[in-house]
Amino acid sequence: MGKASIIVFSGDLDKAMAALTVATGAAASGMDVTLFFTFWGLNVIKKGGAWKGEGFMGKMFNFMARGGDAIGPSRLNMLGMGRWLMKRVMKKKNVKLPREMIADARELGVTFLACEMSMRVMGVRKEDLIPVDDIVGVATYVQEASKADIALFI
Amino acid sequence: MGKASIIVFSGDLDKAMAALTVATGAAASGMDVTLFFTFWGLNVIKKGGAWKGEGFMGKMFNFMARGGDAIGPSRLNMLGMGRWLMKRVMKKKNVKLPREMIADARELGVTFLACEMSMRVMGVRKEDLIPVDDIVGVATYVQEASKADIALFI
Amino acid sequence: MGKASIIVFSGDLDKAMAALTVATGAAASGMDVTLFFTFWGLNVIKKGGAWKGEGFMGKMFNFMARGGDAIGPSRLNMLGMGRWLMKRVMKKKNVKLPREMIADARELGVTFLACEMSMRVMGVRKEDLIPVDDIVGVATYVQEASKADIALFI
Repeated sequence: MGKASIIVFSGDLDKAMAALTVATGAAASGMDVTLFFTFWGLNVIKKGGAWKGEGFMGKMFNFMARGGDAIGPSRLNMLGMGRWLMKRVMKKKNVKLPREMIADARELGVTFLACEMSMRVMGVRKEDLIPVDDIVGVATYVQEASKADIALFI
Repeated sequence: MGKASIIVFSGDLDKAMAALTVATGAAASGMDVTLFFTFWGLNVIKKGGAWKGEGFMGKMFNFMARGGDAIGPSRLNMLGMGRWLMKRVMKKKNVKLPREMIADARELGVTFLACEMSMRVMGVRKEDLIPVDDIVGVATYVQEASKADIALFI
Repeated sequence: MGKASIIVFSGDLDKAMAALTVATGAAASGMDVTLFFTFWGLNVIKKGGAWKGEGFMGKMFNFMARGGDAIGPSRLNMLGMGRWLMKRVMKKKNVKLPREMIADARELGVTFLACEMSMRVMGVRKEDLIPVDDIVGVATYVQEASKADIALFI
């Protein structure tokens, strides 16, 4: 039922969630899905790291602190709360967290590829990442994406 | 003449304009175009809201204030002015504003879809939005996008 | 061997590098590649400008200064150093700089198109840009992209 190929370039929670939502949605529809984690997107598949430590929420709080009154209320609603509160709200609203979405994607057979060049530039080693299917170069991405029915850069 | 499917994830004016420009351009070329408004992109189709209130310009000014001398002059040219001035310049330069572009897109038959999950997470209700064709889930997006000749994430 | 069409909307170094990496990778694989530089992406093909002057590093330093401890260490590794140091590291790591990547793309036959409307809005003249193949409108983009096997918005 077709093929989807998504570059996960961003390490931001909202974009990672969008990428994982499309990936799991496509896989659940029977598509053959590949995620290419590159640049900041490598943070999404780091063991612990940006997704578990203080760094991410620090960034969210920082964002809120400096742009609080300059951004819309719905944006504030989401950003103006601690990690635990956000977690609770997402559970209550029946929205999955990235870690759960990654597990779902895995179970649905989504292929996880990490970008070799980005890892070199950012100093990320294989052992820093959760298990991926392969570490590849741009040629592999191009080959995959050129056959894809949906090719996105997120 | 083909099909275009665009995820409007960003709520930033520049990206919304890019999405609407491609959408109207594709529709004008006879393509069947669908816009999926998700996450911050929901702000683009909010009644009044972020596009009419103080929030947006506040953000622009904020951006300018904190990054003023750190960004290129062309960026400054665009950001370093009030909403009314920007409006005048855009009119003078014959560039349409988002509201006009949305009206154009409507007239050209572009389909407007809002993301159900995002609405739930962000606390956005149907009545907060301008009329859309439907409120849908990721499965609908995947089905649409897999048949599209142009599928973008903006 | 197929066709790739990439909108370069962002003027950020990391995204420009991603766009140029995919473009040269696709061209090296024998694909027919077109880059559409629009909005901030015009900075990528400016003569000197944002890529040579102080503006860009100022932005990077600024980013680091205000978000330093809120972002992950790999992000800091890349941003927390002067332009010359970054240049050295990239050379040492065998990663090409944007200028070199543009030259590579040129040599590999990648088509460079600049967006007419963006140039008008941002006050960018043809003579401000490095030589491009053409200055075009959205209709040309749509025509190209609808035939592409890989269509991305970066």
